[in-house]
Amino acid sequence: MNLTECQQLDALDPLRTLKNQFTLPPGVIYLDGNSLGAMPKAAAARIANAVQQEWGTELIRAWNSAGWFEAPLRLGNRLAPWIGAGQNEVVVTDTTSTNLYKTLFAAILIAKKAYTDCGVSPRSTKNIVLSERSNFPTDLYIAQGLCAQHGFVLKLIEPEELPSALTEQVAVLMLTHVNYRTGAMHDMPSLTAAAHAVGALALWDLAHSAGAVPVDLTAADADFAVGCTYKYLNGGPGSPAFLWVHPRHVDSFEQPLSGWWGHAKPFAMAPDYEAAKGIARYLCGTQPILSLTGVECGLDTFAAAQGLGGMAALRKKSLALTDLFIQLVEERCAGFGFGLATPRHHSQRGSQVSLTRTDPQEPTRSSGAYAIVQALIARGVIGDYRKGDGAQHADILRFGFTPLYIGFEDVWNAVEHLRQVMLTDEWQRPEFNQTHAVT
Amino acid sequence: MNLTECQQLDALDPLRTLKNQFTLPPGVIYLDGNSLGAMPKAAAARIANAVQQEWGTELIRAWNSAGWFEAPLRLGNRLAPWIGAGQNEVVVTDTTSTNLYKTLFAAILIAKKAYTDCGVSPRSTKNIVLSERSNFPTDLYIAQGLCAQHGFVLKLIEPEELPSALTEQVAVLMLTHVNYRTGAMHDMPSLTAAAHAVGALALWDLAHSAGAVPVDLTAADADFAVGCTYKYLNGGPGSPAFLWVHPRHVDSFEQPLSGWWGHAKPFAMAPDYEAAKGIARYLCGTQPILSLTGVECGLDTFAAAQGLGGMAALRKKSLALTDLFIQLVEERCAGFGFGLATPRHHSQRGSQVSLTRTDPQEPTRSSGAYAIVQALIARGVIGDYRKGDGAQHADILRFGFTPLYIGFEDVWNAVEHLRQVMLTDEWQRPEFNQTHAVT
Repeated sequence: MNLTECQQLDALDPLRTLKNQFTLPPGVIYLDGNSLGAMPKAAAARIANAVQQEWGTELIRAWNSAGWFEAPLRLGNRLAPWIGAGQNEVVVTDTTSTNLYKTLFAAILIAKKAYTDCGVSPRSTKNIVLSERSNFPTDLYIAQGLCAQHGFVLKLIEPEELPSALTEQVAVLMLTHVNYRTGAMHDMPSLTAAAHAVGALALWDLAHSAGAVPVDLTAADADFAVGCTYKYLNGGPGSPAFLWVHPRHVDSFEQPLSGWWGHAKPFAMAPDYEAAKGIARYLCGTQPILSLTGVECGLDTFAAAQGLGGMAALRKKSLALTDLFIQLVEERCAGFGFGLATPRHHSQRGSQVSLTRTDPQEPTRSSGAYAIVQALIARGVIGDYRKGDGAQHADILRFGFTPLYIGFEDVWNAVEHLRQVMLTDEWQRPEFNQTHAVT
Repeated sequence: MNLTECQQLDALDPLRTLKNQFTLPPGVIYLDGNSLGAMPKAAAARIANAVQQEWGTELIRAWNSAGWFEAPLRLGNRLAPWIGAGQNEVVVTDTTSTNLYKTLFAAILIAKKAYTDCGVSPRSTKNIVLSERSNFPTDLYIAQGLCAQHGFVLKLIEPEELPSALTEQVAVLMLTHVNYRTGAMHDMPSLTAAAHAVGALALWDLAHSAGAVPVDLTAADADFAVGCTYKYLNGGPGSPAFLWVHPRHVDSFEQPLSGWWGHAKPFAMAPDYEAAKGIARYLCGTQPILSLTGVECGLDTFAAAQGLGGMAALRKKSLALTDLFIQLVEERCAGFGFGLATPRHHSQRGSQVSLTRTDPQEPTRSSGAYAIVQALIARGVIGDYRKGDGAQHADILRFGFTPLYIGFEDVWNAVEHLRQVMLTDEWQRPEFNQTHAVT
């Protein structure tokens, strides 16, 4: 594979025009769409309209005239097909952490009610929330708090321990579908089935899946899902998260954040809480409209992909991009100490590639990941760094490949920059070795 | 009082230039800043910059370069002086409902711990959260849910029952400082002292106070406060809310929404939750940056007021505006059935005036409030309507007076429109009598 061949792949790519929907700064190869998606060009005018026309001119009337109040459900309905959810089953609201709190709380209540109803298992035997040690930390923090509140136990394992850990004691299996560090993807249908087989509920975090890989919550028969709109869905910095509940559970329990947006009649201003029927009960307070407008723009970029083969076409290109990146790193950066943290098998890979790096002279020790990422960023190749724990999980160089706006020539150029950074020892410069806050 | 005299008051108003900071549509008299503040002119360019420069060009780097990650605390510090809070005691984050959940949860835990520690009162004797029946509904809904979770009782009373209801059984007094319907303002220092005298904590909702009336949480010795930035603070539609905790409590308890933004070291990505010291532990998930940028613009409009006498000057003008409105309605709309729901006494009045309306032929029955508000809106006088409960609380015509951008001539003209609407029976037209969603 060489540059010309990569350019030919771009010329033949049926999705190549989708890139025109985005603004990317000149000289930048943006491989961090898994952290913050690029800006859709249309966002500038659309958000300016929300500010100047809706807020500035319509003022309070815009709650009705501009559809602000319906935005969480309207956006949820637009997102639903991309995650295999039905209409009126998804809301875009609050943050992923907050939505996880609502759904895990509901899952724990459902689990508690199940043993009360069937009278079979005493409570103490089915009180585990099972998750991965390397799940995204906020998921673990929220689960720790809820488990402490409810007398449950949060059990953390490595992914390979999942089959043996899924015992009758597990009440909820809470997993992130695609691991934020490694890009390893779980088999959602089979793990959900395995959870159900032991009487556990399955709660999925789709932060690194929605818009990145095919997801079919309905076919997988999942119970709950939450996820993020500011990564692959291009909703803008910190844009509100989403939340899905299977229809069989949605009216079973009131979620704990019982605010007025989840009331059956929010404008009746009744003093008593009466949860709305359906997914609307998972709303809580007034939503940040300007940031929700960004989600609208992000979803528009997917609407354009729909006519070009939709998620199947996006997935095909995503795998071709990550395959190419792996191949080129292994061919052209051989001997520099890089290892592959992302599974090679397509069925186990999200839309990112994570590398480890060890000193070739001392191959048991993580070395240089942070500085190499900084040197790449200085060259305009924006990926990111994720710190390891010094033991089981190594430091990671993380590269996201968003088929909406990344092409094959970008992959070639990114690897060429990486090769130069290593060949010339550029990454060893002091300015790339000063740590600071990273996101 | 006549139009010329009102124009003279404007000419003499030391705050008259502050209006130039806002964009208001031509022909509109905006008396709904208590629901959604007007758009600061600077917001258009500032938010466009956040979209195009920060998101579009800086991309992921903007978390550091544009200060996104620090925004909740930075904005909290800018807001703090307007509510009598100290530096690093306030965060701007999430929604008012969510923040109320966090703070009331913490208050209930502190109350529980107090009886465990002192060993005096058995738990069942101090388990009341006391609030007003006409508190903003979402506050009551959140409190209902938390009381059910924790075995507490939510007791709702009318304001005049407060002194007798504040018994030793009360664990938390949860009040909204300025009532959203009537604009009646509680005496925060004396009620907080009364709560403390019976060993209860005082939690204040400042949704209709922050930026509207003088608030000094520190001097009042309050325990917790939450509030809204999209009303008098002009942060834009649904902009994130704020939260304050008295330093004596802030490190006492972990709030339940234990997300990564509240972690002591959020980017260490450690699997165990360790709450940050100080107010940062009340953060949860990633915040909607575009909407937070709106809060920045809103607070800028207050910075301009600081040099012109600050809150004392704003309050003086606010009272002059509401006094004038009351006087003119009573003089010029006499006989049309209007009553005053807002206290006349300055110490009990927020920055709004609420009217009731009864049919002069049938003076015991609420009549026409909704239609009269619609007729006024059609004339460009934007106030709003709040439904009563058909019994104790009448339907309300609500008018907010924001001294930053409302002048005395506006008050004259608003009352003149109201007079015309009544004189000509304009409000009885069918188009003003079709109910729809109101916010």
